[in-house]
Amino acid sequence: MLAELYFTRHPGFWKMLTVAMCMALLGCLQAQEPQGHVSIILLGATGDLAKKYLWQGLFQLYLDEAGKGHSFSFHGAALTTTKQGQELLAKILESLSCPKDVAPGRCAELKAQFQRLSQYRQLKTTEDYLALSKDIEALVQKEGLREAGRVFYFSVPPFAYADIARSINSSCRPGPGAWLRVVLEKPFGHDYLSAQQLATELGSFFQEEEMYRVDHYLGKQAVAQILPFRDQNRKALDGLWNRHHVERVEIVMKETVDAEGRTSFYEEYGVIRDVLQNHLTEILSLVAMELPYNVSSSEAVLQHKLQAFQALRGLRKGSAVVGQYQAYSEQVRRELHKPPSFHSLTPTFAGILVHMDNLRWEGVPFILMSGKALDERVGYVRILFKNRAYCAQSEKHWVADQSQCLPQQVVFYIGHGELGSPAVLVSRNLFRPSLPSQSWKELEGRPGLRLFGRPLSDYYAYCPVREQDAYSILISHIFHGRKDSFITTENLLASWVFWTPLLDSLAHEVPRLYPGGAENGHLLDFEFSGSQLAFSQRQPEQLVPGPGSSPMPSDFQVLTAMYRESPLVSAWPEELIAKLASDIEATAVRAVRRFGQFHLALSGGSSPIVLFQQLAMGHYGFPWAHTHLWLVDERCVPLWDPESNFQGLQTHLLQHVRVPYYNVHPMPVHLHQRLCAEEDQGARAYADEISALVTNGSFDMVLLGMGTDGHTASLFPQSPTGLDGEQLVVLTESPSRPHQRMSLSLPLINRARKVAVLVMGRLKREITMLVSRVGHEPKKWPISGVLPASGQLVWYMDYEAFLG
Amino acid sequence: MLAELYFTRHPGFWKMLTVAMCMALLGCLQAQEPQGHVSIILLGATGDLAKKYLWQGLFQLYLDEAGKGHSFSFHGAALTTTKQGQELLAKILESLSCPKDVAPGRCAELKAQFQRLSQYRQLKTTEDYLALSKDIEALVQKEGLREAGRVFYFSVPPFAYADIARSINSSCRPGPGAWLRVVLEKPFGHDYLSAQQLATELGSFFQEEEMYRVDHYLGKQAVAQILPFRDQNRKALDGLWNRHHVERVEIVMKETVDAEGRTSFYEEYGVIRDVLQNHLTEILSLVAMELPYNVSSSEAVLQHKLQAFQALRGLRKGSAVVGQYQAYSEQVRRELHKPPSFHSLTPTFAGILVHMDNLRWEGVPFILMSGKALDERVGYVRILFKNRAYCAQSEKHWVADQSQCLPQQVVFYIGHGELGSPAVLVSRNLFRPSLPSQSWKELEGRPGLRLFGRPLSDYYAYCPVREQDAYSILISHIFHGRKDSFITTENLLASWVFWTPLLDSLAHEVPRLYPGGAENGHLLDFEFSGSQLAFSQRQPEQLVPGPGSSPMPSDFQVLTAMYRESPLVSAWPEELIAKLASDIEATAVRAVRRFGQFHLALSGGSSPIVLFQQLAMGHYGFPWAHTHLWLVDERCVPLWDPESNFQGLQTHLLQHVRVPYYNVHPMPVHLHQRLCAEEDQGARAYADEISALVTNGSFDMVLLGMGTDGHTASLFPQSPTGLDGEQLVVLTESPSRPHQRMSLSLPLINRARKVAVLVMGRLKREITMLVSRVGHEPKKWPISGVLPASGQLVWYMDYEAFLG
Repeated sequence: MLAELYFTRHPGFWKMLTVAMCMALLGCLQAQEPQGHVSIILLGATGDLAKKYLWQGLFQLYLDEAGKGHSFSFHGAALTTTKQGQELLAKILESLSCPKDVAPGRCAELKAQFQRLSQYRQLKTTEDYLALSKDIEALVQKEGLREAGRVFYFSVPPFAYADIARSINSSCRPGPGAWLRVVLEKPFGHDYLSAQQLATELGSFFQEEEMYRVDHYLGKQAVAQILPFRDQNRKALDGLWNRHHVERVEIVMKETVDAEGRTSFYEEYGVIRDVLQNHLTEILSLVAMELPYNVSSSEAVLQHKLQAFQALRGLRKGSAVVGQYQAYSEQVRRELHKPPSFHSLTPTFAGILVHMDNLRWEGVPFILMSGKALDERVGYVRILFKNRAYCAQSEKHWVADQSQCLPQQVVFYIGHGELGSPAVLVSRNLFRPSLPSQSWKELEGRPGLRLFGRPLSDYYAYCPVREQDAYSILISHIFHGRKDSFITTENLLASWVFWTPLLDSLAHEVPRLYPGGAENGHLLDFEFSGSQLAFSQRQPEQLVPGPGSSPMPSDFQVLTAMYRESPLVSAWPEELIAKLASDIEATAVRAVRRFGQFHLALSGGSSPIVLFQQLAMGHYGFPWAHTHLWLVDERCVPLWDPESNFQGLQTHLLQHVRVPYYNVHPMPVHLHQRLCAEEDQGARAYADEISALVTNGSFDMVLLGMGTDGHTASLFPQSPTGLDGEQLVVLTESPSRPHQRMSLSLPLINRARKVAVLVMGRLKREITMLVSRVGHEPKKWPISGVLPASGQLVWYMDYEAFLG
Repeated sequence: MLAELYFTRHPGFWKMLTVAMCMALLGCLQAQEPQGHVSIILLGATGDLAKKYLWQGLFQLYLDEAGKGHSFSFHGAALTTTKQGQELLAKILESLSCPKDVAPGRCAELKAQFQRLSQYRQLKTTEDYLALSKDIEALVQKEGLREAGRVFYFSVPPFAYADIARSINSSCRPGPGAWLRVVLEKPFGHDYLSAQQLATELGSFFQEEEMYRVDHYLGKQAVAQILPFRDQNRKALDGLWNRHHVERVEIVMKETVDAEGRTSFYEEYGVIRDVLQNHLTEILSLVAMELPYNVSSSEAVLQHKLQAFQALRGLRKGSAVVGQYQAYSEQVRRELHKPPSFHSLTPTFAGILVHMDNLRWEGVPFILMSGKALDERVGYVRILFKNRAYCAQSEKHWVADQSQCLPQQVVFYIGHGELGSPAVLVSRNLFRPSLPSQSWKELEGRPGLRLFGRPLSDYYAYCPVREQDAYSILISHIFHGRKDSFITTENLLASWVFWTPLLDSLAHEVPRLYPGGAENGHLLDFEFSGSQLAFSQRQPEQLVPGPGSSPMPSDFQVLTAMYRESPLVSAWPEELIAKLASDIEATAVRAVRRFGQFHLALSGGSSPIVLFQQLAMGHYGFPWAHTHLWLVDERCVPLWDPESNFQGLQTHLLQHVRVPYYNVHPMPVHLHQRLCAEEDQGARAYADEISALVTNGSFDMVLLGMGTDGHTASLFPQSPTGLDGEQLVVLTESPSRPHQRMSLSLPLINRARKVAVLVMGRLKREITMLVSRVGHEPKKWPISGVLPASGQLVWYMDYEAFLG
């Protein structure tokens, strides 16, 4: 079969090539009608990335696509003078290689064609861009072609983005009917704010659909296979791909190299920004997303990906462990000319525990790990399934493809490691996977090779028929407009929304030092408990003294003292919350033993939320089934409003423990579809409910906070209601929004058997000092009116609030 | 040191023995004051159990205790004549063996003493018992002793219990100040009812504290070590022994022997009654119970054990897999003279999945397994911990006692198997356990031996210093009154309450046939999903045709037809519920897509509960966060009453999915601490709530049932309210208790967009037939008034209800 090829500027040349290329490269594709001319402008054409991958990728694109109707021209651009640039480019183009199955002679011909189509030009000023545009137009016209589109590939540092983008937008857009695609390389910002700024700036020059942000991991063959694999094995995976069956997901990129020579970049980014925020997060979304009905719809894939991001549970400092290889700080000092006293806090190793808050993945740990100077170079995604079987025969009788007691896993092996190539592995006792046979073939046996605890022979194992470089694949996807292989602005910002709080909270964390390589031993192994991550081994002797060797929380004991003539418990936040949780549990157990039930009134706000989380985990003895939960105060918003105190209670406690529905008593701030209307008598109704269920209106325990203005519950200074009088529950006004509140009154609070006041954080230091000195002045400082008539008052303050 | 020994009937004999025994046997115990005489009467003294274990146990008791102040006499009793009995007993006593460290000469002396203290006597009539009592009294008087107590050990078939018990109670109780202990051997009934009858009968003769029901597994050294181990390793286990850390618990007793020669017993009991209801359940309670503060308090242990029983989630047919070794039916036919057509349904293999509904163990699978004719003889309890670690180094660098990525387990190895002795194993990467060094020692290494997937060297492994027979241990516990090693009546009945429903539901189940031994292959491997258990392999060709080869549910397709001019879906119950659940989900997804929310009104009763369970599991796409749940009807009981429809909803659905609190709408049947008082206007309030939230009062879906009298919702025949008129929600009267109900009215139901009527079970057959023929007569048959004005009505009936 003949193929018609349209090559720019040598239209007479094609015939002689046709047969040869058809046989050698193009798989005898059906020739198509001319589809217009595509200009590809590679900015930073002589840089490292371009040299190593991009020109090769463009050459591959040319080989793949030239026979299908488009014509091409390639423009290498940089700031270098034309002459120097031409020389550099010529060298690069000379080093291009053809696919293995192309004979040397033919390869030389093909390279020569590609070289003729490729030109260097200096692009500095807006005028340069205008000139380029004119040249392209002239060329197209001269050859009698139609312009199909222009690709600008930004292989330049991010600080150069804005100027280039402005010039392209103002002076180098193609005419109507032709498309513009700009390809951007990471970093895409340093945190949410900078990423957003960059995105806004680019957004002022380009449409969203014009931008192609590259994450080259999305071009790696095993990664690119995740969605097709899930799609082609829907039937087998449908029942398995969820929290009932998946034990854990590991997403790992280990390197043996360190950051030497690159510390000026690395010191600013670190492993989380360099690898986790982008590559591993993208992989996570491919594994976790709901599978669209049609996986070849870019739009559907991108939308489902975004939904996956939205289900990510927020990370906290406790979600991560970080390390730094021992030689790093010295490398930084040397390369960046820092003084001998300088110690870097940049992590070169991170382990992160990610949870997803949706029904499919709730409770399944997603472990993300990457590091430099580790014992091996390898990348993989491993989905380990729960062992749900009991095997009646003893182990020696187990057969790999039949025993359900042997591990069951699906692994997308990205590359390197003991296997040395990309692969897809599926345990034989799981199912026989279906993979596209034109691009994936069964891996040959390798006796002795064990992967993830089992011999290779325990897996159905597939590798690519032809290994392809990620950039070649992505350049092809850019050409075909397959946006799902790229990072949209929404996607990018969603990822930064997820990572930024963790990065902020780790900013002053001292990473664990590790020696590097196999020497690391078990030093970097980590474990999780709930959503908390920690190194398995306690911190060993510091190999070199780390910076900031300030005392650690565990160096302090919980402090007990007196405050306003009542007992005070003071500690670091974690210990304080743990102590308060234990005290509440003990009170609950006693109350249930004595009275059969426990009435607990809780405040809203952020400190109680940490307490709720603590109570939700690990307090097995807590008699939830006999506990009634009341609110101390509430904002006049619907219960489902994120501002509602009840929402915090629901999200962080009720969803994790078994409190019967009818033991939960939200404040009736929303009756008859109105908020805190006097005539709905919500406060009265709550008071009645309390009177009916709580003996003498004496709560077993009331948890309060203290505001910087000395308010407690929703009783604010000078409040006309709630500070005294007969009313048990009152409507009040807050100085801050939402103004309307409902609150237990001081007299009701003071009937409680036990009142705990939780005060945390540096911001509370001043009021803590002040209140320690004032007498009983509830009109001025409502908190000073908290004085249980016959119950006990205990203050819980962290060191920052108490000691400052 | 000298010890004074008090031996009955040869008080002058002791001196010469003192020193020798002190050295050899008694560990030079401090001699004590005489503590009175103990008579031990072994009923069934020449039977198998007595021959094999009990006399040896009594001899051991004598050796252990004779030096500590008590004197003893041993009475072997049976129905045999005195002369014959004496001969038989003499033979048994002659075969007794001494502990290993006693020299042969000394052993002969000790045996001779014991033989002199042991007498045979025929015990048939009440007079025989009276004579025994008199003889004991005479002996005690003659020797100048005080009577301490009498032990009657029932080693006789259960049918003989009542007569013996009556005789003991009437004629052989010791005098005041001396105790009576009766020791009972299983079986203790065949199910809950028979166990209760037996218990009631025994209770009319003996006090609870007088009865010692033996489960000899409680005397096995590894089992007896469970609580002490938990106690002595509290610190290490405290954080581990719970659902956050335990992956699964396996409680296993495998036998290689089959039931040949014992089928007359076995055919009546089967493996569940023989092993699981007693031995494995007892072990389960020791593992799962909350650990009492003081584990040596029998009372506390028994109470905590009972609490563990109460937390057991009820078993259903789906909680078990059962098998029968292939030769069993033939053995039964031969031994019990059954016709060739006879096929037994008695299981000889069972795997059971147990869940506990408490915060400590929720979600942790407890796997109980036992069977005959398996590939090995072994018993163990294995607690496997969750792997919560990620190891940053590749596997080849893992070190057994450091790597948290290797399996972590605690095993109580009951005996036999590859280890060949009782043992306690703790993975070295878990913690170094503390065991009492006088009774447990470290096991010697055995290169090449692997247990539970790891080499023995991966464990801290301990075995008893001296292996002891379970009966010896239990006889000692009887003597010391350690009731926690025995089964109290409450404990027994609690176990039967747990097992009986499963036994009933399995009564007609055809067990899977298995060839026996290693031939079983993977045939008996099983898996769980949720609380459902199934063999891993699909049923292979029947080895011999089983009985009752009626068509299986999967042989039928879901049937769709018309009923009362509306679509009818009919299927076997499981498929029917699955179809209904899918239809509800599809409706929900559509509604949320169109309107942003889904309003579903649900009925109470047992059929919806299965539906709730189905919806709670595996419907990941269900938009719970946007679903409002309403009640179709409610009984006028508090919401927390087990009879409340809301309770079923709460237990089986709400606890498992995430419906926001404020989207749940229980009926207000309990206002102002009263039930359905007219003046509280609960019906009106519910109607207002519906009007406020549900557009036009049109529920997206209403799920109804149909009563055998043709009622639906709580709208009963001849109801004066709710069948027509303006009211949306009404109070009604039910013919059955509780009479007062609240219900949606027919006019409101008929406004729904979709109404599903679920009808299941044979009992509904008649009304189904009847209603198929009647017209629109809601006064007579309220269900006939269900006719959505513009919505759709679908009937879901299982085959039993529809086809009968």
